[in-house]
Amino acid sequence: MKCENYGLNRSTERDNLNLNPLQRGGVLSSAAREALFEFSDGYSVCDYCAGRLDQISKPGINSFLDDLATFINADVVRTVNGAREGKFAVMHGICNEGESVVVDGNAHYTTHLAVERNNLNMIEVPVTNEPEFEITVENYRATLEDAVDREQVSLAVLTHVDGDYGNLVDAKKIAKVCHENGVPLLLNCAYSMGRLPIDANEWGVDFVVGSGHKSMAASGPIGVLGVSDEFVNKLLIRSNRHTKKEIELLGCTSRGAPIATLMASFPYLIERVKKWDVEVEKSRNFAAMMEEIEGVTQLGVKPTNHDLIRFDTPHFHEIGKTHKRKGYYLYEELKKRKIVGIKRGQTEWFKCSTYGMTEDQIQYIAKSFKEISRINNTT
Amino acid sequence: MKCENYGLNRSTERDNLNLNPLQRGGVLSSAAREALFEFSDGYSVCDYCAGRLDQISKPGINSFLDDLATFINADVVRTVNGAREGKFAVMHGICNEGESVVVDGNAHYTTHLAVERNNLNMIEVPVTNEPEFEITVENYRATLEDAVDREQVSLAVLTHVDGDYGNLVDAKKIAKVCHENGVPLLLNCAYSMGRLPIDANEWGVDFVVGSGHKSMAASGPIGVLGVSDEFVNKLLIRSNRHTKKEIELLGCTSRGAPIATLMASFPYLIERVKKWDVEVEKSRNFAAMMEEIEGVTQLGVKPTNHDLIRFDTPHFHEIGKTHKRKGYYLYEELKKRKIVGIKRGQTEWFKCSTYGMTEDQIQYIAKSFKEISRINNTT
Repeated sequence: MKCENYGLNRSTERDNLNLNPLQRGGVLSSAAREALFEFSDGYSVCDYCAGRLDQISKPGINSFLDDLATFINADVVRTVNGAREGKFAVMHGICNEGESVVVDGNAHYTTHLAVERNNLNMIEVPVTNEPEFEITVENYRATLEDAVDREQVSLAVLTHVDGDYGNLVDAKKIAKVCHENGVPLLLNCAYSMGRLPIDANEWGVDFVVGSGHKSMAASGPIGVLGVSDEFVNKLLIRSNRHTKKEIELLGCTSRGAPIATLMASFPYLIERVKKWDVEVEKSRNFAAMMEEIEGVTQLGVKPTNHDLIRFDTPHFHEIGKTHKRKGYYLYEELKKRKIVGIKRGQTEWFKCSTYGMTEDQIQYIAKSFKEISRINNTT
Repeated sequence: MKCENYGLNRSTERDNLNLNPLQRGGVLSSAAREALFEFSDGYSVCDYCAGRLDQISKPGINSFLDDLATFINADVVRTVNGAREGKFAVMHGICNEGESVVVDGNAHYTTHLAVERNNLNMIEVPVTNEPEFEITVENYRATLEDAVDREQVSLAVLTHVDGDYGNLVDAKKIAKVCHENGVPLLLNCAYSMGRLPIDANEWGVDFVVGSGHKSMAASGPIGVLGVSDEFVNKLLIRSNRHTKKEIELLGCTSRGAPIATLMASFPYLIERVKKWDVEVEKSRNFAAMMEEIEGVTQLGVKPTNHDLIRFDTPHFHEIGKTHKRKGYYLYEELKKRKIVGIKRGQTEWFKCSTYGMTEDQIQYIAKSFKEISRINNTT
């Protein structure tokens, strides 16, 4: 048989400034690129396995997981195939079919899917009105207390930083509310772990998940699952027959290049989370520069506390109505300026991130948007 | 915080002849190494995603999956995080808690874990006596018919080539037995898909799983799940809320370098499965040369039909009893000769594979074992 040409190159996204928030935190460190070379083949980390991925000492996965537990201040850490697989595993291990899960209204779609796949009932905490779309402690408390009165709520899920507005929640206060109601809390840190400091035990969260490919400078797919001592024996049950193997993880999860790259990037992550306030400052400056364009508004909490920013851009949408390239002009004008990551044809609103970029690059991007606005503005 | 040195190099395993069967089929093609460079960062294949991994056209994941379906003659194909995750998904989607699954006695431990994680009951088909340890059609029929009489059997699982003896089963005949009993069959091709031709529809199997890192020259973790038309609507149900997303896959599975490497290796796989008979011939010759050493016997069906071979080696064990390096001598003598992949201290039996090696390399390995036997033999 003959196969198609799959177009396996990514030079556009590698060579240009990529604003796609999904891509900013997963750019490999140089050490991770070296590890990728070493551990590219198949089951590369399994040469010296004695039955448990998390106990392999060559390479030092066992000491890495200890260090990672310290880094996020969780009692026990495992790698999983991604944050979504971590959320599914927690729900699968902790909840029984038909029970209820309270979920914040800014949850990622994979939280909803994990609930659905587990045949659980979902109760959502409403967000506040536009333009903040915030998850407040008060709303979380009201929804949870109401749910607990009426149903068997076996888990609460909270999105630490959501992927729509980049809103950062107060995990500690919401964890307290959950515990007052006797419900364990799972914190989804896909957009925070590896970008900003995570302190699971200090915040009092029972489970925490992170994403290697989203925010930890690792090749996908790999996620991190942190568990408090209280739940280790319930979640990480071992097989009766294969007594070393943890059932909920199907024995092993991330076996190969993704874990090697995550390990190699780890010293780099330790350093970069220390500079999180600098990233937030850059992000705020970027939002302020963008808002100098009339008809461009940052949504979500202001000033932002994260690099993922959603802009409402009726101005750019208006231009597209009369532009000869229609709504494609924005993508094309940006690409001419070596900026990518805003979808072709999208003008009404967009999400973007300048995480990891230099001040100069950010200035250049804001200037480019301004220029595109100016030269195409016909009103 | 300071982190440990995790020893992130794999030069021993890369630079020497590695006999570990787990590692032979996952060695990347050169095209896959190039793809790894392109798609190393995080969520690298997701730049142009419109909501479904399997429908991404840049890179051409959608056309790749069509080609892959043709390659294994399955109606519909998805990638998953590994063969184990594929088995779990099939059981989770098809079976109800408390129902029974019939499993062959040579099943991989992950099949057992998938059964356990789904709270299903497992009924095992016995293998024939030593030294063949074979799964026969007759034994499969007897166990299945007995089970169906007494319990709600919702799935049968068969290991196409097992990881203990490298025995190849007659999938077509056993599929017929399953269908006569109204039970769908899942074929685990972790050790066959990508090494030898797979023909799911011709064999009549309802589900098939493969492993990218084990047998398809891809970086781990990635697996393949093939589904017959009859079961697509039952297994690949979409979310009510996120109508594009398939619940059982949590939306997307392998997102990043693993799928890029699998795609890049695909043309190479198409060619290499055509030469499977040559690999079997090399494997048989290797087994014959090894058996020239007195006290070395190939277990499993003879002559072997696969590259994974298990040797019973009381001879090498005997030497270790009086050797000054005890049981470590075998590992050390092999390593001196640039041969790795047999565990340190293991002498009583071992599994090995020469898949993908040249005739000269295989001759050299057999000669080395003979030499180690000769110079250390004190009887």
